[in-house]
Amino acid sequence: MGRWQPNARGRLEQAALDLYVERGFAQTTVTEIAGRAGLTERTFFRHFADKREVLFSGSAELQELLVAAVNGAPEGAAPIDAVAAGLDAIGDLMQERRPYARRRQSVITANTELRERELIKLATLSAATAEALHRRGVAEPAASLAAEAGIAVFRIAFGRWVGGPDDKELAQLMRESLAELKAVAAGA
Amino acid sequence: MGRWQPNARGRLEQAALDLYVERGFAQTTVTEIAGRAGLTERTFFRHFADKREVLFSGSAELQELLVAAVNGAPEGAAPIDAVAAGLDAIGDLMQERRPYARRRQSVITANTELRERELIKLATLSAATAEALHRRGVAEPAASLAAEAGIAVFRIAFGRWVGGPDDKELAQLMRESLAELKAVAAGA
Repeated sequence: MGRWQPNARGRLEQAALDLYVERGFAQTTVTEIAGRAGLTERTFFRHFADKREVLFSGSAELQELLVAAVNGAPEGAAPIDAVAAGLDAIGDLMQERRPYARRRQSVITANTELRERELIKLATLSAATAEALHRRGVAEPAASLAAEAGIAVFRIAFGRWVGGPDDKELAQLMRESLAELKAVAAGA
Repeated sequence: MGRWQPNARGRLEQAALDLYVERGFAQTTVTEIAGRAGLTERTFFRHFADKREVLFSGSAELQELLVAAVNGAPEGAAPIDAVAAGLDAIGDLMQERRPYARRRQSVITANTELRERELIKLATLSAATAEALHRRGVAEPAASLAAEAGIAVFRIAFGRWVGGPDDKELAQLMRESLAELKAVAAGA
């Protein structure tokens, strides 16, 4: 109790996801998650606000990566190309976590409250992207539209990647979806 | 009690919005809304599932209009043009309700739960639009991308219209935003 626990955060994430997959999200309590991880509830709440947040703990990292890549795009790059650089960066990170992403998504899809939470996280990601474009000197509404377009590409490619049988990489699927969006916008 | 009440639905909507603006959404009860409208709680629940739903009762109508316009677009029209026809249709309907829309939006912006609800309604609108495009023979991911692009245009134009000082019409702002999205997607 109170001692430092090696990788407590990761153990809690793993225990929570295992229980959500086995029993369902609604049927799982924080007490059970902590117990499965061999930790206390107190430790759980040191890392996560609630049992929902365990599933979204990666979104801050995603946002940082996306924003950093938008910031780092070559000066003079078109807004959509800066956004594409951001998508590449998060695609590579997520690719390494595909088994986790698949299991996590099965839990989210089965629960309305979690699907709502996911929409909010995506809206936050879009707003952060628009903000990064503003700092590059992109005006409104172009910044928000480029950000929304990027998040739409992410959503659709992610759905194909996480649910699909093929083994295309997420970054590749996002590049294809972006090309398709460009074609659609051009009236193809 | 139990008698037919002329325009009960409209009176409840008006009373609810008045109270939400005056006191805040969280501070208003269904009892108070019914009382202000001169109706019973029972009548309230005949029309609305809860006090949140009063603010979103228009979304079914919006969705019908949007889908009907997508369905009715000329055969062979590009997906993005079918979506643009849908946006024109809802722009014209909403334009007539601008004073209501402004007051409603001030309530939604002030409340996290309502902002979340709005995101869900927009996601539903996007899915219905993609569905309508499928029925026109548009394949995935083009259908979902065109739908998402359309909803992004709607969100951004709506924000400018509802919050902006100018008196541009919503349909006009959506046309401008769509043109801007096309330019952004083309790498402008």
